[in-house]
Amino acid sequence: MLRYMTSGESHGKAMLAILDGMPAGLRVEDSIINVDLSRRMLGHGRGKRMRIEADKVRILSGLRKSVTIGSPITFMVNNIDDTIDRLPAVLHPRPGHADLSGAIKYDLKDIRSVLERASARETVARVAVGAVAKALLAEFGIDIASHVTAIGGIEAEIKDLGFKQLVSISERSPVRCADPDASKLMCAEIDDAMEEGDSLGGIFELIVRGAPAGLGSYTQWDKRISARIAFAVMSIQAVRGVSFGTGIGAAHLRGSMVHDEIFYEKKRGFYRTTNNAGGIEGGITTGEAIVVQAVMKPIATLGLPLASVNIRTKRPVRAALERADVCAVPAAGVIGEAVIAIELAGAMIEKFGGDSVREMKRNYNGYKEQVRKF
Amino acid sequence: MLRYMTSGESHGKAMLAILDGMPAGLRVEDSIINVDLSRRMLGHGRGKRMRIEADKVRILSGLRKSVTIGSPITFMVNNIDDTIDRLPAVLHPRPGHADLSGAIKYDLKDIRSVLERASARETVARVAVGAVAKALLAEFGIDIASHVTAIGGIEAEIKDLGFKQLVSISERSPVRCADPDASKLMCAEIDDAMEEGDSLGGIFELIVRGAPAGLGSYTQWDKRISARIAFAVMSIQAVRGVSFGTGIGAAHLRGSMVHDEIFYEKKRGFYRTTNNAGGIEGGITTGEAIVVQAVMKPIATLGLPLASVNIRTKRPVRAALERADVCAVPAAGVIGEAVIAIELAGAMIEKFGGDSVREMKRNYNGYKEQVRKF
Amino acid sequence: MLRYMTSGESHGKAMLAILDGMPAGLRVEDSIINVDLSRRMLGHGRGKRMRIEADKVRILSGLRKSVTIGSPITFMVNNIDDTIDRLPAVLHPRPGHADLSGAIKYDLKDIRSVLERASARETVARVAVGAVAKALLAEFGIDIASHVTAIGGIEAEIKDLGFKQLVSISERSPVRCADPDASKLMCAEIDDAMEEGDSLGGIFELIVRGAPAGLGSYTQWDKRISARIAFAVMSIQAVRGVSFGTGIGAAHLRGSMVHDEIFYEKKRGFYRTTNNAGGIEGGITTGEAIVVQAVMKPIATLGLPLASVNIRTKRPVRAALERADVCAVPAAGVIGEAVIAIELAGAMIEKFGGDSVREMKRNYNGYKEQVRKF
Amino acid sequence: MLRYMTSGESHGKAMLAILDGMPAGLRVEDSIINVDLSRRMLGHGRGKRMRIEADKVRILSGLRKSVTIGSPITFMVNNIDDTIDRLPAVLHPRPGHADLSGAIKYDLKDIRSVLERASARETVARVAVGAVAKALLAEFGIDIASHVTAIGGIEAEIKDLGFKQLVSISERSPVRCADPDASKLMCAEIDDAMEEGDSLGGIFELIVRGAPAGLGSYTQWDKRISARIAFAVMSIQAVRGVSFGTGIGAAHLRGSMVHDEIFYEKKRGFYRTTNNAGGIEGGITTGEAIVVQAVMKPIATLGLPLASVNIRTKRPVRAALERADVCAVPAAGVIGEAVIAIELAGAMIEKFGGDSVREMKRNYNGYKEQVRKF
Repeated sequence: MLRYMTSGESHGKAMLAILDGMPAGLRVEDSIINVDLSRRMLGHGRGKRMRIEADKVRILSGLRKSVTIGSPITFMVNNIDDTIDRLPAVLHPRPGHADLSGAIKYDLKDIRSVLERASARETVARVAVGAVAKALLAEFGIDIASHVTAIGGIEAEIKDLGFKQLVSISERSPVRCADPDASKLMCAEIDDAMEEGDSLGGIFELIVRGAPAGLGSYTQWDKRISARIAFAVMSIQAVRGVSFGTGIGAAHLRGSMVHDEIFYEKKRGFYRTTNNAGGIEGGITTGEAIVVQAVMKPIATLGLPLASVNIRTKRPVRAALERADVCAVPAAGVIGEAVIAIELAGAMIEKFGGDSVREMKRNYNGYKEQVRKF
Repeated sequence: MLRYMTSGESHGKAMLAILDGMPAGLRVEDSIINVDLSRRMLGHGRGKRMRIEADKVRILSGLRKSVTIGSPITFMVNNIDDTIDRLPAVLHPRPGHADLSGAIKYDLKDIRSVLERASARETVARVAVGAVAKALLAEFGIDIASHVTAIGGIEAEIKDLGFKQLVSISERSPVRCADPDASKLMCAEIDDAMEEGDSLGGIFELIVRGAPAGLGSYTQWDKRISARIAFAVMSIQAVRGVSFGTGIGAAHLRGSMVHDEIFYEKKRGFYRTTNNAGGIEGGITTGEAIVVQAVMKPIATLGLPLASVNIRTKRPVRAALERADVCAVPAAGVIGEAVIAIELAGAMIEKFGGDSVREMKRNYNGYKEQVRKF
Repeated sequence: MLRYMTSGESHGKAMLAILDGMPAGLRVEDSIINVDLSRRMLGHGRGKRMRIEADKVRILSGLRKSVTIGSPITFMVNNIDDTIDRLPAVLHPRPGHADLSGAIKYDLKDIRSVLERASARETVARVAVGAVAKALLAEFGIDIASHVTAIGGIEAEIKDLGFKQLVSISERSPVRCADPDASKLMCAEIDDAMEEGDSLGGIFELIVRGAPAGLGSYTQWDKRISARIAFAVMSIQAVRGVSFGTGIGAAHLRGSMVHDEIFYEKKRGFYRTTNNAGGIEGGITTGEAIVVQAVMKPIATLGLPLASVNIRTKRPVRAALERADVCAVPAAGVIGEAVIAIELAGAMIEKFGGDSVREMKRNYNGYKEQVRKF
Repeated sequence: MLRYMTSGESHGKAMLAILDGMPAGLRVEDSIINVDLSRRMLGHGRGKRMRIEADKVRILSGLRKSVTIGSPITFMVNNIDDTIDRLPAVLHPRPGHADLSGAIKYDLKDIRSVLERASARETVARVAVGAVAKALLAEFGIDIASHVTAIGGIEAEIKDLGFKQLVSISERSPVRCADPDASKLMCAEIDDAMEEGDSLGGIFELIVRGAPAGLGSYTQWDKRISARIAFAVMSIQAVRGVSFGTGIGAAHLRGSMVHDEIFYEKKRGFYRTTNNAGGIEGGITTGEAIVVQAVMKPIATLGLPLASVNIRTKRPVRAALERADVCAVPAAGVIGEAVIAIELAGAMIEKFGGDSVREMKRNYNGYKEQVRKF
């Protein structure tokens, strides 16, 4: 079983996570984590905080000479701005944030005690965990990518790109979008929104290549890999919708246009010529690419704040102003990669055992052979 | 902690569930469950199976004189057609179902062993569990409704209806749609698809009225009520997308148009005049109505079956033909009600304790007073 | 992941369980379950209830033609005496039972609503689940036995018997004790206690032969197989103590007398000549026999009831008299077998994957080879 | 839900833990944690490591101005000796430790990668977590103590001491034993064992005063508070047995001598004059003191090492020599306090809700009133 918890406040000492259940024998260099931490900070539309923090991970446990030993792995990313105990009270809850409900729930008279943890800075820890999950998946030839398909109403048109091409184009785009024209329009839209003290949301897509058929299950409601992925993706701050394959489009088409017919060739085994299902049927992976879309609402902290109420005086005010991004969809894609990687690494460990990478691989190869001969 | 597991095969002896963690002192009549079991079977476009089974629940444990006693509750709905051991082998996997991946995963040479459990008949058990969860929520003035907003490309236009009106109109519609005009078009579309041996999907919406502010949490990724609801809804067979509030629309609008401004009146406390967030901010309920959309793909068993492959001979064939619906979106809404009820009942028990209804209510009232004075 | 829940009241319709996570391809005949259900009912000192119920399992799901298919398995054992709704209220809590605390916790004014579920009749369901777990373990050459080592102060002297001999002698004893002399004294002690309206407890031992080295882990507190076994065994009604290997004796000896020295022979691999540790070191199985003792307190329902208080009038009374055993230690051993089997089956599935028996065996054999070459 | 994970290797950078689910509004000073960290290091018979490390906690998250805010709390205790990557390989597994099975399980050719995590130094993190759990319990008048009842065959005779007296005497004893005479003999026995290169185990007892009736449940096997406590206590390194109340003695007495009769007085409510049950009946707390014994085996690292085998050459050798204690029973009691505190804090949060201390107290007081009027 793979599990993790994160901790840390936005202006506390550090963002942390403990990841429990990784097999022994996996090489984990800080650098593979730091690459994703950097990718998480980029993107046109990010705020000043991104320039203040230059996140580098410290791994405090679970490795010997950069190799896992089966023990829990601890990730720590220091906050340079660790002034939590000196920062002033926040009394004006921001619409769209946990501010008001969080203060009510936990009986806190200073909203800072909410926003410090509710902040998307928490995702630093998840990205670190996800980088290790990706490293495990890579041992099995499983790759994960993300790209932005919409920002602020501008929708990308993605031609039929291969996985590699999609990655290489989107990673070069300032908004991580694989449509260069849309990319430019998105940047302009972001600049415009920034100028007007407003914010933008959008859509990103996750693609997982190389996952075997047979992860997840229909046998119990909470084992469906689709449901687990939705759980993970929807747990990302500001995500408001999740869909698979052709997504919402599936609602409007007839079955004969949606379901992916099944073919067989001796060399390839069973295969499909379409992948409308997004790599999952009946809560189980099919062996085709897993394709997930996530809808992100606009950033909830606005340059021109919305109407709110002072929680002490109860008088109408403008919402609090915290350092914030105008648009974080490109970064959210990186976070999406992390959380889907964690779910899939967990599913792989569950199916193939998880004490050592060597054992996992042996079991995996045995299964591949079983599938081949099925 | 509220938890449940279901069991049962489509043509086995029965569909069952054990629900663990309900407080003592809740009245549960079979009738409240049977009402939802009936609602689950209705809807224009359902297949013959629906006419064969007339589902009635038997509660085998957890009640004394129709009142809960804190013990696990067992639900059993008999299958009239319990011929699982005599039914012929299935060798032609149906695209869109768990058939192929399930057989590979579990190393089963007869797909019947997959489809019997992967079948949406499993939701009978979930609807039974959900009916009890609804009964608990009703004690706290929390109501749940569902309605269909799209089928086969026909989209409903829902005028600004109140909760009660929405329920009363949609419950009278043969497709559980609150737009009578769309309702007719949907029925026609279903008839058309049936004639052509095809199937349809669509979209349904869940609305929860009366949930207090403060369920769920941003403090750990797996505590967000939005993520938990997405997990539950995505675990429904054939659901391919989940969204909250204004849903996918949130991706395309600016923050100032999306976030719900905060107001205060002495009598009402904090309130909003819009509810674009769908009742959840930062993974916590706000006290406004919870609004969730679910996208359902078309039924995967088609009257005119798709291309497939015989899993023994590996020769191309047409997919297997099982009894099936043409469209099950109206029923899926009822299932959606059940799973969201279970999640919310669980969140209520977590927040207010769950040993007896009397204790829960006392704790709930104390919290309401705390919120009022916040 | 293997998990299960039980349900059912002592005089309700049935005792049930759902077991989720068993691999496909395991043969499960009702008979193997019924054998253990019968063994659970035997033993000198059992009460009248045992003669009323003749427990036979009905498997309601999860099998096709007596073979598992990966789906959850449902067990039902009917209660012949299913008069729960007609039985009179119980107002006099029995010391030693959940009666008083249960009524207070769940706010129940009739103790019957407590005792119906707190009753050890619940273990019928666990024994059924355990029989399937044993069947899985048997596929890997893992056997489980139990025997009674003490009843009412009479302690058995077990000479150095082999596993098979221990089983064959103890299974023939009316108190499941492998020391024939002690066996007789125990029976006499039971008769004596019965005559005096009193009850007896004792100690049973569980022995697991054939478990591989490497189940459980020291890497996180809740992964230790010793802790998990203690959890399971202590969850048996009336068990008050659990110990491993030489048990409490380990507290009084020096390390040099307790720890099992390590040897190696090419054919056998690593081995020990002693097994004071009871097959577990550092929370991991060593490959030696797992040996667990459980202390059972005397039955809490006495023929000559103890002092109690009427929960309505608050007047002193004698405790309620329910049908009960005088001594149930022999039966508790059978229940112990069940719960340790479930824990070990779960640990095997976790380590070797759990989709099909064929896959598990392939993975297991690969690991055995790895261990051989270590 | 209260949950925690620990991490860290004995000679790694630090020992850590994340504790998730503590209510907001609890004051937590580092000092209350450091007191227990110090108590954990004391005791006659501790090794040199204890003199090297002077453990002080750093809390990295979850507090603002020393008060909890509902967010996960991170504990870090630095290792002064953090030489893990430079320490030589260990090839000679120590009998009694996870060394051999751990290396086999995780496929590690250097036992250091096992012993670094399997080391009881991990309990530093648990003691830190436990100190916060104790602080929460203290808000409800629940106190926890531990004392040593046996070391190396010397058994204490504890006269009928009150809770406070027991604490004050045992805390002054160099072996945390409340019998001054036994205390001296234990010290002598430890000195003797040390001289002979041997080690000792023993027994400690945990006492919890002030827990309300109604924690835990008989309704499902894994909810019994006795089973949960056994799980937690047995997860402590080197613990080999757990028992409740009169412990193993209950096996040998008749029911009439064991079960605690029930009485009632208007002022006190229901009460007992004996507490043989150790505060738990039917898996639920009774309101009497919770009493738990734990058997600890002798330290497995011996000054005069036992026979072992070089895992590379397979030649017979003496087991590896790591810095170690001769006897750690007094410290184990402190660790026992921590783990039982965590279980009980979790049970309190489950029963009374856990968002803020104020809410918990309100709910608790309501329940106390309900119990009073029962």
